[in-house]
Amino acid sequence: MTHVVVLGAGSWGTAFAKVLADAGRDVVVWARRPEVAEAIRSTRTNPDYLPQLRLPAGVRATTDAAEAISGSDLVVLAVPAQTLRGNLAEWARHLEPDSTLVSLMKGIELGTTKRMSEVIVETAGVAADRVAVVSGPNLAAEIGSEQPAATVVACTDTDRATEVQNSVNTPYFRPYTNDDVIGTELGGAVKNVIALAYGITTAMGLGDNTRATLITRGLAETARLGVALGADPLTFAGLAGLGDLVATCSSPLSRNRTFGERLGRGETLEQAQAATRQTAEGVKSCLAIRDLSRAHGVEMPITEQVERVCHEGADPHTAMAVLMSRKPRPE
Amino acid sequence: MTHVVVLGAGSWGTAFAKVLADAGRDVVVWARRPEVAEAIRSTRTNPDYLPQLRLPAGVRATTDAAEAISGSDLVVLAVPAQTLRGNLAEWARHLEPDSTLVSLMKGIELGTTKRMSEVIVETAGVAADRVAVVSGPNLAAEIGSEQPAATVVACTDTDRATEVQNSVNTPYFRPYTNDDVIGTELGGAVKNVIALAYGITTAMGLGDNTRATLITRGLAETARLGVALGADPLTFAGLAGLGDLVATCSSPLSRNRTFGERLGRGETLEQAQAATRQTAEGVKSCLAIRDLSRAHGVEMPITEQVERVCHEGADPHTAMAVLMSRKPRPE
Repeated sequence: MTHVVVLGAGSWGTAFAKVLADAGRDVVVWARRPEVAEAIRSTRTNPDYLPQLRLPAGVRATTDAAEAISGSDLVVLAVPAQTLRGNLAEWARHLEPDSTLVSLMKGIELGTTKRMSEVIVETAGVAADRVAVVSGPNLAAEIGSEQPAATVVACTDTDRATEVQNSVNTPYFRPYTNDDVIGTELGGAVKNVIALAYGITTAMGLGDNTRATLITRGLAETARLGVALGADPLTFAGLAGLGDLVATCSSPLSRNRTFGERLGRGETLEQAQAATRQTAEGVKSCLAIRDLSRAHGVEMPITEQVERVCHEGADPHTAMAVLMSRKPRPE
Repeated sequence: MTHVVVLGAGSWGTAFAKVLADAGRDVVVWARRPEVAEAIRSTRTNPDYLPQLRLPAGVRATTDAAEAISGSDLVVLAVPAQTLRGNLAEWARHLEPDSTLVSLMKGIELGTTKRMSEVIVETAGVAADRVAVVSGPNLAAEIGSEQPAATVVACTDTDRATEVQNSVNTPYFRPYTNDDVIGTELGGAVKNVIALAYGITTAMGLGDNTRATLITRGLAETARLGVALGADPLTFAGLAGLGDLVATCSSPLSRNRTFGERLGRGETLEQAQAATRQTAEGVKSCLAIRDLSRAHGVEMPITEQVERVCHEGADPHTAMAVLMSRKPRPE
């Protein structure tokens, strides 16, 4: 059996490497920074991201992507969404001819408004049915500590979906297959934007009624966009839609939610970025999702307001008031 | 304009009386216990249930149901679900001929497996289109403090739905109309059972991934039952389905969730009942919902396990392990 390569050693890439190893696969993790690869080799941990997680002994780490990709039947992409195109352009020529590419990334590319699987197909020059997407209520820290979780493996090629399913099936991580790549990816991308809104309302002191309404309306606008793009509406009621959205909004560990809380407390985008030393993915993706919704004539009022707060300096209180004052009508 | 009567002065009945008064209606609250009626009259509060809530000056309180119902165009039923039939049998003859009956109750009747609106139609001898159901993410304490919330008003008679909508529309409480009475009621009843399971898993220390999966699967089994009974599947994606479920599970104020937490910590049903001096509605309804699901050949694995924990002495850890070990398959 050939090995799996995980390209990207952030929280989710690292936790996913553990899942693959626990499922019996031979795993190589590529890290951009030498000190991360070295830490994995010498301590079996990734102290910057998931200090509690201990990687199984068989997991190797490298900074040499070309060597890691060669001979790999399963190529897991776990880099920041907006860096995918640049990275993959360099990596594509090392791919084995029939390998499966698995996306763990949750975002929409700025400028092109493309989903991650579309960027993969375009940049790597592979057929769409070679790309699988894994998405669900999968907070990395919890998976690292083997808390029970379930996920969706979406691929238009059912056999490949089953191969990926077998490569990650462990007693604590249960993968369900699905053929709706579009819906699975959109659920993961839009939830980051809704989690920002959830964080904003949380910081404003709004209660569980308001926040549950936000989740409900957020999922509804995600599904509207999904249907316009050809997704199966039922995907949004499943683990990659509702499940992922609820987990991300509920967790005080979620980066998008906590970034939203900073904005809701009155920090500017720059202040929140400086304090967290990063930009939450939803801050970037909300621009692309807003553009996508306008291009398809789909109303996404929550996304519109999040974009206004993040990028146009709108006051979060005003933005939330606009959402709540939409006029009553049949649901 | 005639007055509204709210029959039942528990948390939700009391908060709903405030909403009606704030929407400009003349309100009479019926309380079973004289001391509650007296407290409302003398202090404008209901200290046993919602001590923070202050009722507007116009709200009257009485223990005389007959007098309160007479002359009322809108009769709001807010008694414990399992006491509805007995109470309404006494009250029915006082109803005005064309009044609208509004159910705030979330449960399924034991023995008959009937929804609250069915019990109303049967016991009061009224046409089904005179009964409206109000349900959504509406934690009473938050509505009492005028936190923004939205709800669903479901009635097969659109004009009546709009009348009820107008009677409760305030700046902090936004009602949406819907004609799916079955789905709206089932969402409210089954969520109590799922909230018990959520409480059990919370007490067991399981994380947000597991709990988000439970919410997703819980809503899926609710929708399966709903479709078998003639509900619109979309209702479960809305405020009365997803919204109410998420609010109830998220809130540490929710009675069903906190009751589940006691069971998850190892208390027996009797110990939990003794400590809370009541039985959470989901504990009762899970029996009726389980019977309903079996009668219609619908699989409801979470409800089955909650029933086993509550009524058959099953160990919560074993019950949750059974749920998590269902075999992987297409979602």
